[in-house]
Amino acid sequence: MLPLNDVVSRTENEISSKTVTTNQKEKKTKQKLQLKAPTQERSKQTVNTLIQSCTDLLRKEGFFGVTTDKVAKSAGISIGSLYQFFGNKESVVSAVIQHALEGDMQLFENKIKEFSLGQEKNKKTYVVKTLIEIFENDLELKTKMLPIQNYLLEPTWINQYIQFFVKNISTFLSTDNEQISEVKINIFVSSFLGLIQNLIQQNKKISDEKDYLNYVISLYSQFI
Amino acid sequence: MLPLNDVVSRTENEISSKTVTTNQKEKKTKQKLQLKAPTQERSKQTVNTLIQSCTDLLRKEGFFGVTTDKVAKSAGISIGSLYQFFGNKESVVSAVIQHALEGDMQLFENKIKEFSLGQEKNKKTYVVKTLIEIFENDLELKTKMLPIQNYLLEPTWINQYIQFFVKNISTFLSTDNEQISEVKINIFVSSFLGLIQNLIQQNKKISDEKDYLNYVISLYSQFI
Repeated sequence: MLPLNDVVSRTENEISSKTVTTNQKEKKTKQKLQLKAPTQERSKQTVNTLIQSCTDLLRKEGFFGVTTDKVAKSAGISIGSLYQFFGNKESVVSAVIQHALEGDMQLFENKIKEFSLGQEKNKKTYVVKTLIEIFENDLELKTKMLPIQNYLLEPTWINQYIQFFVKNISTFLSTDNEQISEVKINIFVSSFLGLIQNLIQQNKKISDEKDYLNYVISLYSQFI
Repeated sequence: MLPLNDVVSRTENEISSKTVTTNQKEKKTKQKLQLKAPTQERSKQTVNTLIQSCTDLLRKEGFFGVTTDKVAKSAGISIGSLYQFFGNKESVVSAVIQHALEGDMQLFENKIKEFSLGQEKNKKTYVVKTLIEIFENDLELKTKMLPIQNYLLEPTWINQYIQFFVKNISTFLSTDNEQISEVKINIFVSSFLGLIQNLIQQNKKISDEKDYLNYVISLYSQFI
């Protein structure tokens, strides 16, 4: 299992490395332009403030309601400063989505740690319930992210997100007597994430509907 | 179960009704512009030829490789004619994706009909295997559609696609003694479609890998 600070430091590295290494490629494919690496502490703070403002805007108004002008204004940062770090709206929104998904991963790490210290017996049900909690966390934002995240993020990024859960769940469920198959857990995580995404698209929330919740726990707890 | 010609006529209606009713809304949100309803037989043929050319281009080069110029040229149709029916590239690609998903639905109808005439005993395994076959049908095209389909299609359209499978599978599996719950089948279809989509994103194909196939059949056949 990755230690928590790996996730955190990866977040920071990605912000800076992305600007340097993938700028060229993104320009060609998705018109995301992130121009300057925020190496100094103050630059990092500016980037974080912009991401936070854009998160709020995306949650409230959706992708088509976001403009770089609005993001800069509500962050209290000049539009010139915004363009020092992000070449366009796609670039800011892409950083917002990554930040939110990194939040999911961090939350999962914490939940797994909490369990180790706790008393609960059934690890499998715990995994299913925790995944529902995490994938449905900040549902308003997730609803707005869903139509654009496959479009704006590189496929490798989404794969890393899925693999993070696969590796951590495999480790969590494995015992001295039983090594859990990663192929099996990949089917589990890919199905589960896909389910939640398709339900979000249908405006359904598992945790609100007892019928849905029961079927989901029955389908998934027995499998892993 | 919807009769097959409902699906076919729906395809045609959607091409024409979409141009009239959703033009205004799409202009605002996704910059898809479909301008003229192809009411005459010849116009319909032109639209179909353009959709076929764009399908081939998308399959080969992906969304960022598609241009309206290339589509018109390889269709042997003037760019002016293309712009009579589609306002921009997003509009043509959107029609391509709808056409492909309608193909999935038609294929599923046929498969269900084949079963009724056939000998196979286990309906549940048949459903699982048929869904794998359909969702992985024309995988090269699906791989290129995936990053953009939630972006270009209205959520209601994707919901209709899911509901089509939910209704048909529920009807197919229900007997005089047992009414299958649509909530349960919704969990099943949403999970299954999400699984295939996430595996496509990871460049994995269930039907090629025995391990994946076995886990998928074991997870899903027991559930429904």
